[in-house]
Amino acid sequence: MAKSKFEYVRYFEQESKCLKNCWIVVRIDGKNFHRFTEAHEFEKPNDTNGLNLMTNAAVNVLREFSDINFAFGHSDEFSFVFKKKSNIFNRRSDKILSLVNSIFSSSYVFFWNKYFPNKELMYAPAFDARIVLYPTDQNLRDYLSWRQADVHVNNLYNTCFWALVLKMGLSPVEAEEKLRGTLSRDKNELLYQNFNINYNNEPEMFRKGTTLVRKCISWEGSAKHKPVILPLYCDIIKDDFWKSHPEILDQSETPLIDKLNLTHYFVCEQKNFKM
Amino acid sequence: MAKSKFEYVRYFEQESKCLKNCWIVVRIDGKNFHRFTEAHEFEKPNDTNGLNLMTNAAVNVLREFSDINFAFGHSDEFSFVFKKKSNIFNRRSDKILSLVNSIFSSSYVFFWNKYFPNKELMYAPAFDARIVLYPTDQNLRDYLSWRQADVHVNNLYNTCFWALVLKMGLSPVEAEEKLRGTLSRDKNELLYQNFNINYNNEPEMFRKGTTLVRKCISWEGSAKHKPVILPLYCDIIKDDFWKSHPEILDQSETPLIDKLNLTHYFVCEQKNFKM
Amino acid sequence: MAKSKFEYVRYFEQESKCLKNCWIVVRIDGKNFHRFTEAHEFEKPNDTNGLNLMTNAAVNVLREFSDINFAFGHSDEFSFVFKKKSNIFNRRSDKILSLVNSIFSSSYVFFWNKYFPNKELMYAPAFDARIVLYPTDQNLRDYLSWRQADVHVNNLYNTCFWALVLKMGLSPVEAEEKLRGTLSRDKNELLYQNFNINYNNEPEMFRKGTTLVRKCISWEGSAKHKPVILPLYCDIIKDDFWKSHPEILDQSETPLIDKLNLTHYFVCEQKNFKM
Amino acid sequence: MAKSKFEYVRYFEQESKCLKNCWIVVRIDGKNFHRFTEAHEFEKPNDTNGLNLMTNAAVNVLREFSDINFAFGHSDEFSFVFKKKSNIFNRRSDKILSLVNSIFSSSYVFFWNKYFPNKELMYAPAFDARIVLYPTDQNLRDYLSWRQADVHVNNLYNTCFWALVLKMGLSPVEAEEKLRGTLSRDKNELLYQNFNINYNNEPEMFRKGTTLVRKCISWEGSAKHKPVILPLYCDIIKDDFWKSHPEILDQSETPLIDKLNLTHYFVCEQKNFKM
Repeated sequence: MAKSKFEYVRYFEQESKCLKNCWIVVRIDGKNFHRFTEAHEFEKPNDTNGLNLMTNAAVNVLREFSDINFAFGHSDEFSFVFKKKSNIFNRRSDKILSLVNSIFSSSYVFFWNKYFPNKELMYAPAFDARIVLYPTDQNLRDYLSWRQADVHVNNLYNTCFWALVLKMGLSPVEAEEKLRGTLSRDKNELLYQNFNINYNNEPEMFRKGTTLVRKCISWEGSAKHKPVILPLYCDIIKDDFWKSHPEILDQSETPLIDKLNLTHYFVCEQKNFKM
Repeated sequence: MAKSKFEYVRYFEQESKCLKNCWIVVRIDGKNFHRFTEAHEFEKPNDTNGLNLMTNAAVNVLREFSDINFAFGHSDEFSFVFKKKSNIFNRRSDKILSLVNSIFSSSYVFFWNKYFPNKELMYAPAFDARIVLYPTDQNLRDYLSWRQADVHVNNLYNTCFWALVLKMGLSPVEAEEKLRGTLSRDKNELLYQNFNINYNNEPEMFRKGTTLVRKCISWEGSAKHKPVILPLYCDIIKDDFWKSHPEILDQSETPLIDKLNLTHYFVCEQKNFKM
Repeated sequence: MAKSKFEYVRYFEQESKCLKNCWIVVRIDGKNFHRFTEAHEFEKPNDTNGLNLMTNAAVNVLREFSDINFAFGHSDEFSFVFKKKSNIFNRRSDKILSLVNSIFSSSYVFFWNKYFPNKELMYAPAFDARIVLYPTDQNLRDYLSWRQADVHVNNLYNTCFWALVLKMGLSPVEAEEKLRGTLSRDKNELLYQNFNINYNNEPEMFRKGTTLVRKCISWEGSAKHKPVILPLYCDIIKDDFWKSHPEILDQSETPLIDKLNLTHYFVCEQKNFKM
Repeated sequence: MAKSKFEYVRYFEQESKCLKNCWIVVRIDGKNFHRFTEAHEFEKPNDTNGLNLMTNAAVNVLREFSDINFAFGHSDEFSFVFKKKSNIFNRRSDKILSLVNSIFSSSYVFFWNKYFPNKELMYAPAFDARIVLYPTDQNLRDYLSWRQADVHVNNLYNTCFWALVLKMGLSPVEAEEKLRGTLSRDKNELLYQNFNINYNNEPEMFRKGTTLVRKCISWEGSAKHKPVILPLYCDIIKDDFWKSHPEILDQSETPLIDKLNLTHYFVCEQKNFKM
């Protein structure tokens, strides 16, 4: 049983590294979540608990990787952005990809009861992941704009679709037909005329997705500052966001902010432990 | 918010495919499981429940991917073997890697209570994953032999180490020193002389690791055969195993076996659902 | 001008290695050779000197790389096969790819005058190259069969096309139209009826392409055997060839053959030097 | 001889693409040029004809690829820079790598007689090539600075070494020993004291390497401007060069310059043809 005789098989491993000085984006995506959300009777078009569970799983990823200073998610997907200068795992792509995805996946199950205390998880969900490199800040911002524009398009459609099905009693096929070829303004009008819904008053979490950023806050009775992760629901396409949070693109130090403004945040230190 | 303006970012994605006609092996590995097993007070040197939990998570991976016809694991690692002729996800390596690892990770948490009903899971564990290609059956067998030889080397050492620490009261440092430079036969002798342990009588699950194979069985009151996954604890280095299970290397049909011989098996159909 | 300040740029280099235990095939292809053969007034459909020049350039590649034990070419392409067990340049694909292609390209120009003593080379030709891995002997043989089947299809077509144009006076467009949709037997018939050409009597070099193999011969007045490279013009699709030259797939020692049978061969030792 | 039966082998080809929006650098390197320059009795430490031949081969590469807007070379190496926005061959790395290297290699042989009319080329030289991506202008400039700093270090050493060997009669081993551990200023002093050589007065081509840039000039009796390639021998580390040639990093249009200032240039249009 000499181990050495077989060890040559190690040299079949191949290593792929992320090009240096590029933003590394890992995007995870729910596999067959249509079935998963049906099996677990998620609210339509958006299940707030389900979205918050996604966010908490994503927060766990940020707790593990201090080199991720930004994340954005909606529906059953989340994108994690590693700093350009990160040297995590020597930038080995399989390590980065698999660990981000593993922590997200196990955390999703781990936190299930926190968000669905009365609903049993029926089976273990799965997420796929891909890794994409962006050489410039503009490329990265365009990527994130692409994802947020996607939220808008999808959520407006879904809000109409489920209103037609749940409130007007149309069949899914009928709802689909009614919406075919409609423009944004048609959908806005449809919501307003039929359901008295002003789309712009819908919750920002639904319309804008969830953005995670890192900040530091001062801590009760302590001189030390503590890093926290903030979920934000805001526009990340326009310049305003990036001017307000320059540390993301600058890769500079996590800024200290005033705790008084915070309504909701996640503490970093309690890495992985139940809150 | 024109989505199209940003969509160019899609073309930064790069696709890597597994070379055709090669065995695809995905090996997952617990991240920092030393800490995890301490935090959850796993029995030393082997925690049967912990190993069975690993096995059940691995079974879930086989339920999801019918192209995996063999898996082998021990301690906090598991190797999954996709058929050479598999065309799963068009052999895209990131898809294969991330989904195998995701299902394993979420299943580990999902099945925790089944194996540790009285122990709370304190945090979500993480696994990394890598993908390795083997062009020939011999290369694949040598890979698996390498992993099983590793079980032997590690388990013999750990059995000695923990006997010295738990039964003889040595400190970890003392135990380590005592074992430094010893050969297999020295360790066997040490176990026998000091602890009356005949290493060869230790449970096979500890000494051989866990092998998962697919078989079909006939089902009560049904003409249809049902696929099952069998955990085996046996030598996979010598030819015997491969002669007894020729369908693995042949990539031929899953064979029908007699249910009477089975003490333990996992049903495939109830994909992902709690048993 | 401190060199060290800039040296970080080295770490942007990425290394890709050919999977072990696979046949490495490098195929080179003339770039825009339609224009090149016109500019140099090559004979149609086949220019014997042009083909022999290709062969000699390929021979130079085999002189450089003793790990290539087989090559096959026709028209403006050549495929070079490295042994599965080769560890040349640690199997780095860019090194292998670029050097094979470079030697071929420079040798093509270098040997031009030998084959076209009365024709000036008007410009430097270019070849692209790709690298393909084949895990099994069958895959490799199928690759080579694919290339030789291609010779047959192309050469039969070209023989008809140029007979129609050069001997019957059709315009290229007319010739193309006449051949559209014809089967092999139609083309054979056309050649026989109109031009009294029995296609099977056409030179084997045109119909079968050029195969390069390595052998050893004994040398005048010397006990030492010398390695030589033989150009062959024969079927490599059927088993016969591979049974006659078992050392290729076996990767065994270069066999000694009787020099008396040889009409044409290239000596290996005079590496790169003019003959 | 059905071609289709074998065509599955095409799907073993794997495609690797250069990440978008990055500078693509292809660096070619003479293989075993120590032997080549000895066999062809190149002048030491620098052979002007040999360097000009390298330059002309590089010019041929720029004639072929209009997306290369900058090249830098010295000794037996040359680096070619493709525009970040280039979409040549859909950015497939094997195509880019092999064609740049092939044209360079065949051109080197093609132009040999132009630079060495009285010296026979004894064998076909070979060059290897690698491809490196740089995400930012600064990374690219640092890469080029690294190469030019290398020229300085190597040329100062070689100037000393060959002066000691050729003019002072030291053996190569003695010359090496004398230079071991010396700093730049020691070498400058050595040249001045012993050989009355002021290193800064040595030809710029030797001290700075050769830079190739694209410009347009107006043409006699024609309203049309013609693109030309200029060889320059100047510092490319400091900002001055990049301010004088902003089109390189800007990827903007090739500028029109006054022909009167030009002492030496290569016309682009006569692509590949002998001059």
